[in-house]
Amino acid sequence: MEALLRQSSSMCPFLSKTSPATLRSLSTTASNHAVSPGAGSMSSLQVLGRRCPIMGKALAVQSARSGNSALAGAFGGMRAYHTRVNRAKLHTSTSKEAQAVDIEKIRAKQVPFPHAAKQAINAKPTTPVGAPPIPSAAKFDYEGFYESELDKKHKDKSYRYFNNINRLAKEFPRAHMASKDEKVTVWCSNDYLGMGRNPQVLKSMHETLDNYGAGAGGTRNISGHNQHAVGLEGTIAKLHAKEAALVFSSCYVANDATLATLGSKLPNCVILSDSLNHASMIQGIRHSGAKKMVFKHNDVADLEAKLASIPPEYPKIIAFESVYSMCGSIGPIEEICDLAEKYGAITFLDEVHAVGMYGPHGAGVAEHLDYDAHKAGKPQGTIMDRIDIITGTLGKAYGCVGGYIAGSAKMVDAIRSLAPGFIFTTSLPPATMAGAKTAIEYQANYQGDRRLQQLHTRAVKDSLNAKNIPVIPNPSHIIPVLVGNAEVAKQASDLLLENWGIYVQAINYPTVPVGQERLRVTPTPGHTREYREHLVEAFDSVWNQLGIKRTSEWAAEGGFIGVGEPGKEAEAAPLWTDKQLEVDEVLKEMKAGGGAVGVLESILEKEHQATAKAVSAAA
Amino acid sequence: MEALLRQSSSMCPFLSKTSPATLRSLSTTASNHAVSPGAGSMSSLQVLGRRCPIMGKALAVQSARSGNSALAGAFGGMRAYHTRVNRAKLHTSTSKEAQAVDIEKIRAKQVPFPHAAKQAINAKPTTPVGAPPIPSAAKFDYEGFYESELDKKHKDKSYRYFNNINRLAKEFPRAHMASKDEKVTVWCSNDYLGMGRNPQVLKSMHETLDNYGAGAGGTRNISGHNQHAVGLEGTIAKLHAKEAALVFSSCYVANDATLATLGSKLPNCVILSDSLNHASMIQGIRHSGAKKMVFKHNDVADLEAKLASIPPEYPKIIAFESVYSMCGSIGPIEEICDLAEKYGAITFLDEVHAVGMYGPHGAGVAEHLDYDAHKAGKPQGTIMDRIDIITGTLGKAYGCVGGYIAGSAKMVDAIRSLAPGFIFTTSLPPATMAGAKTAIEYQANYQGDRRLQQLHTRAVKDSLNAKNIPVIPNPSHIIPVLVGNAEVAKQASDLLLENWGIYVQAINYPTVPVGQERLRVTPTPGHTREYREHLVEAFDSVWNQLGIKRTSEWAAEGGFIGVGEPGKEAEAAPLWTDKQLEVDEVLKEMKAGGGAVGVLESILEKEHQATAKAVSAAA
Repeated sequence: MEALLRQSSSMCPFLSKTSPATLRSLSTTASNHAVSPGAGSMSSLQVLGRRCPIMGKALAVQSARSGNSALAGAFGGMRAYHTRVNRAKLHTSTSKEAQAVDIEKIRAKQVPFPHAAKQAINAKPTTPVGAPPIPSAAKFDYEGFYESELDKKHKDKSYRYFNNINRLAKEFPRAHMASKDEKVTVWCSNDYLGMGRNPQVLKSMHETLDNYGAGAGGTRNISGHNQHAVGLEGTIAKLHAKEAALVFSSCYVANDATLATLGSKLPNCVILSDSLNHASMIQGIRHSGAKKMVFKHNDVADLEAKLASIPPEYPKIIAFESVYSMCGSIGPIEEICDLAEKYGAITFLDEVHAVGMYGPHGAGVAEHLDYDAHKAGKPQGTIMDRIDIITGTLGKAYGCVGGYIAGSAKMVDAIRSLAPGFIFTTSLPPATMAGAKTAIEYQANYQGDRRLQQLHTRAVKDSLNAKNIPVIPNPSHIIPVLVGNAEVAKQASDLLLENWGIYVQAINYPTVPVGQERLRVTPTPGHTREYREHLVEAFDSVWNQLGIKRTSEWAAEGGFIGVGEPGKEAEAAPLWTDKQLEVDEVLKEMKAGGGAVGVLESILEKEHQATAKAVSAAA
Repeated sequence: MEALLRQSSSMCPFLSKTSPATLRSLSTTASNHAVSPGAGSMSSLQVLGRRCPIMGKALAVQSARSGNSALAGAFGGMRAYHTRVNRAKLHTSTSKEAQAVDIEKIRAKQVPFPHAAKQAINAKPTTPVGAPPIPSAAKFDYEGFYESELDKKHKDKSYRYFNNINRLAKEFPRAHMASKDEKVTVWCSNDYLGMGRNPQVLKSMHETLDNYGAGAGGTRNISGHNQHAVGLEGTIAKLHAKEAALVFSSCYVANDATLATLGSKLPNCVILSDSLNHASMIQGIRHSGAKKMVFKHNDVADLEAKLASIPPEYPKIIAFESVYSMCGSIGPIEEICDLAEKYGAITFLDEVHAVGMYGPHGAGVAEHLDYDAHKAGKPQGTIMDRIDIITGTLGKAYGCVGGYIAGSAKMVDAIRSLAPGFIFTTSLPPATMAGAKTAIEYQANYQGDRRLQQLHTRAVKDSLNAKNIPVIPNPSHIIPVLVGNAEVAKQASDLLLENWGIYVQAINYPTVPVGQERLRVTPTPGHTREYREHLVEAFDSVWNQLGIKRTSEWAAEGGFIGVGEPGKEAEAAPLWTDKQLEVDEVLKEMKAGGGAVGVLESILEKEHQATAKAVSAAA
C-alpha cells in the first residue's frame, strides 16, 4: 500500500496537491457517505481512493492479495467480499489459494468487479436455477439509505418543509394556503412584476389554449416546433439585440445544457465560474467534464489571474450572473467583457433575476448599463452587445415558465443541434410560449412596473434600515434580511406566516452558506403602502420575539457580509438611479427640506394611479 | 514517452482494455474534434491522452522537457506554446534553459496550465496595463468552431430542419403550417390520445389560469408549492399505486435528476442500463458518475450476467423502459423484477410512452401486465407493485407538459431533498399541473381513447403490411416504417408533407442508428378511416416514387431489424389483446368467415360514435 501511495503521489493530481496535514485528517476521519449497512465504516481517504479509477482498482487487487492486512480489512466492502468468498467455497471447487491468481486473470480482462465476477462465472449466471441463493442480508438496504440521508438533513436543519401557497391572480400579491379561507401576503415570489396575472398575458394564453391545445405534443424536431416557438425566440433575440435565441424547458435546463455542451465540445475548454454562481451553471460545468476554475465572487483581479494562467489559444468561457439571487449583488459585467476580449474568452451571462427588471426594454442589467443607447435603439458596441451568450428565464419577472439562451446564430444553431437537454425533450406548450412572448413585449414597451418595483424596494429597504433590521446591502431589487441561523430563520418565517399572515420563505443551506441564513424579501408593484408598513411592523416584532441580531449588533462585532460594515453604502447605491426612475428632481428638493420618506410615498401613490390606468387600458 | 506508456498501461484502465490494433488505429487517425485553428491536428490517441488527468499532465511535462521531440511536437497546443514562449522571451529576462526547471516548480504547486502560468507570473496579471498584449491570432475561433460542428451535421445528413406545425385543437389531428391556410394531417405527434384538446383538460386549465395566474412564481421551496402540485402528485401516486410522487419540469429532467442523484449518492452504486434507453437516462447515468453497465436491449440473460458480476452488497439500479419509443418494442418487466429481487437491485422503469396508453387505468405497461388485478383495484403483489421507481410524462398521452417519478415515500423525499434539478428550478405553472391532473383522472376513468388508439394502430399496421410497406414489427402503439437511409427518409417526409399534406417526421441519427432511419407513425383516436386510407395511399406512392425497399425486398435479403425476418409474428402480437379491447368475439366470428379488415372498420365506426358521445358528455 505504501509503495503504491509513493508511486502514485508523483503522478496523481490529488495526492500531490493535498497537504500532508489534510491527508492525515482525511485518513483518520470516518466518512458519513460510506457507511453502507453491514459494511462497516471507511476513512474519508479510503472513500476518495475507491472513487479514483486508478487507485480503486489497485486497492482492490492489493486487498485481494493480502486478504488479512489491516488496511485492506478496513474496507467494508472488501471485508464483506471475503466473508462471501468463504461462504461461496461451499458451492465451488476453487481453493482459496487460487483466488488471487484468478482475480488477476479476470482483472486483465477488465471485468469491473473481479471478485463478484469470479462468483458469477462459477454460478453460471445464464442458468439462474443453478445459482447459489444470495442471502438477503448481503443486499443493500435502499430504504435505510434514503432514511439516513433524510435524517442528516433533519439534523443539520436543512430539511425543507414546503408551504402550500396559492397565489391569487385577482388579489395579487395575496395567496391562500391549503384552506381557501386562510389568506396571506406573498413577500418572496419571483413573479417580481406580477406578470403572472397580467391581463394581456392571460388573454394571450386563453386564446392559444383554445386554438392550439394544452401541450406541444412533441420535441422540437418531431411535431413540437410551431409559430409560437418561432415568435418567442424572435422576440427574445430582439430583446437582447442578438442574432438568435433558443427556448428550453427552464433556465436551469438552458444553463445546464448549454454549458455542458460547449464545455464538452470545445477542445481543451476551460470554464471560469463565479463562486456564487447558481446551481444550474455549476451542474452544467460539472456535466461538461471541462476544466473548471472558480474565481472569487465579483473579483476581476482573481478572474484575470486565472485567465492569464490558461494558454491563449485554449477556448475559455466566463460564466457569471448579473443579479445574484440570494444576496442581490451585481456582477462587474463591463470589466468581465474587457477581460474576455483581452484573453480570448467568451462571456456567458445569466440574467435570470434581471430580465424584465432592468434596462429601458427590460433586457437586464447588461442593457441597463447603456440605458440611453438602448433607449435610443442603438445597441451596437454596448456592453450587452459584447456579451456572447445571455441566458434568461420566462418564469420570474415574465411570470410564466421556461428559459432561454441568446447569442450568435451559429452558436445557437450549434446548441440546437448538439444539446441533448434541448433535443430530447417535449417543447413548452404553445400557450406558455404565447404568454411569455406577450409578457416580454409588454415589458419592452412599458417601464411602469419595474420602476414601481424599484421604488417599493427602496421604500422597504429604507423602512427596515430605519428599524435597525439587518438588510444585506446591495444595488438590486432583492432584499436579503440576515438571520444567521437555520433554525431561527425557519422560526421567523413560521411566525411571520402564522401570526402576521406574511409569507417569506427562510433561505437556508445549501442555497446560502451555513451561518448566512436569511429571509429574502421581494417587493412587487403590488406591494402598496399598507402591505409594506405591515411587513416592517411584523419584522420588528419577530426580531424582538426571537431576539434576532439587529444591524447595530452586527456592527458592534465589526459587521458581517455587508451588514453593519462601514463603507458599504457606495456599493449598495441602487442600479436604477433617481434620474432613470424620474424621481431625481422631487427627491432632491425634499431631501433638502427633510422628510424624504414621505415624498417617496407620495411619488408612489402617483405611480400606482398611473399603473392602474395602464393595466386597465391594456386589458 | 514510451517508458511513460509502459508504466501507465499496467495501471490505466483504458490502455489495458484497448487492443493494440485499436491503439494503432487511434494513433494514426487525425481527430476532427481537435483541430483548433492555428494549432495543427492531433491523432485521436493524443486527444484522448490529453483528456486523461494523469496522462495529460505527464505529457505536458514531457513535452516541456524535450521541446524538440517529434512526438511532443505533434501536439498542436504544445507547438503553439513553444512559439509563444519564444516570443515572450522578448518581454522577460528568463532564459530558455531555465524554463523547464521553472515549469517543474510550478507543476509541483499544481497550477493548472504551467506554461501559461509562467507567462502570467512574469506579466503580473493583476496589473493588466503591464501585460504583454496577446496577439489575436492566438485566440480560439469560437464562431469557426460552431460552423465546423454544423458542417459536420450537414455532411452526415443529421442536421435538423424543424417543420412549423401548429396543431389545431378544434380540428385534431389537423395542423396548419407557417401559413394558416396551409393545412396538414399530423401523423407523428406524441399527443397519442388527443388529450391536448380534451374539453375537460382545457376547462380545468382556463379556470386555473384565471384564478391562479400564468406561472408558479418560484421554486417548490420558495412560493412555488401549491395545491396544484399537491393534487397532481397525489393523483400520480394513486395512478401507480405508490406511496408518493414528485413532479419535474419534464421527464427528461426527472430521469436525469433522479438517476444522477441516486447514482452519485448511493455508495459504490452500479447502474445497469438497457442499450436502447432514452437520452435522458443516459445523461442521468453519466452525470451520476456511477459505474455504468449497458446490457443488450431486452436481453435478460445479458442483464443477469452483469448483475451477477457485481458484489451483492453494492447498490444497483436497473434502468429500462416499458415502450421503446423509436422501435415500439416492450421491455421484459416481470423478468427484470425477478432479477432485481434475486440480486438486490432496484428497478427504474421509464413508462413515458406508455402512461395513459396501457392498463385499465392508463398507468402503463406494468399495470397492463396485471390487467384484471388492477381493474379490480388490487395492486398488491403485481408487477407494477414490484417496480421501485416509475417515471412518466405529462407531455405525451396526457397532452400537457412535465414529468414525474413515483415510488416509496422515502425515496421520493430523498430525491425532493437532494436533486439540484428539482430543487433549483421554477415549478410548473398551476394551470399546467391542474390540466395534467384532469388528464390523468380522465384516462383513469375512461378506456375509450386508448382502446380506439390501439384499434387504429392495428388498422394502419394491417393496411401498410398489406401494401408491402416495411413496418418494424412490435407489440405497441408505435408504427416505425423502415427507410434505411437518412437522405431518403428526409425526402420521403418532405414529399408526404408537400404532395400529400401528411406530416410524418423522418427519424435519423442520433435518434436511431445510421442505416435504420425510419418514419415513425403514431395514430390517435382522431385518425379516422379517411385519414388512414389517405396515409396508406401516400406511403405506397412515395415508396414507388423514391424506390424505397419494400418488406419483401428486405425479406429477400434475410430481413433487417425485424422487417422481413421470419418468426417475428409472435413477438409482435399486440399487448392489448382482442379480449382487453373487447373485440374478441366479433373478430373471431369474422375471421372464420374472412374479411377481418372490414370488421375492424365497422367496430371502429361504433367506437367513434361512443367516443364522440363520451367527449360531448364530458364537455
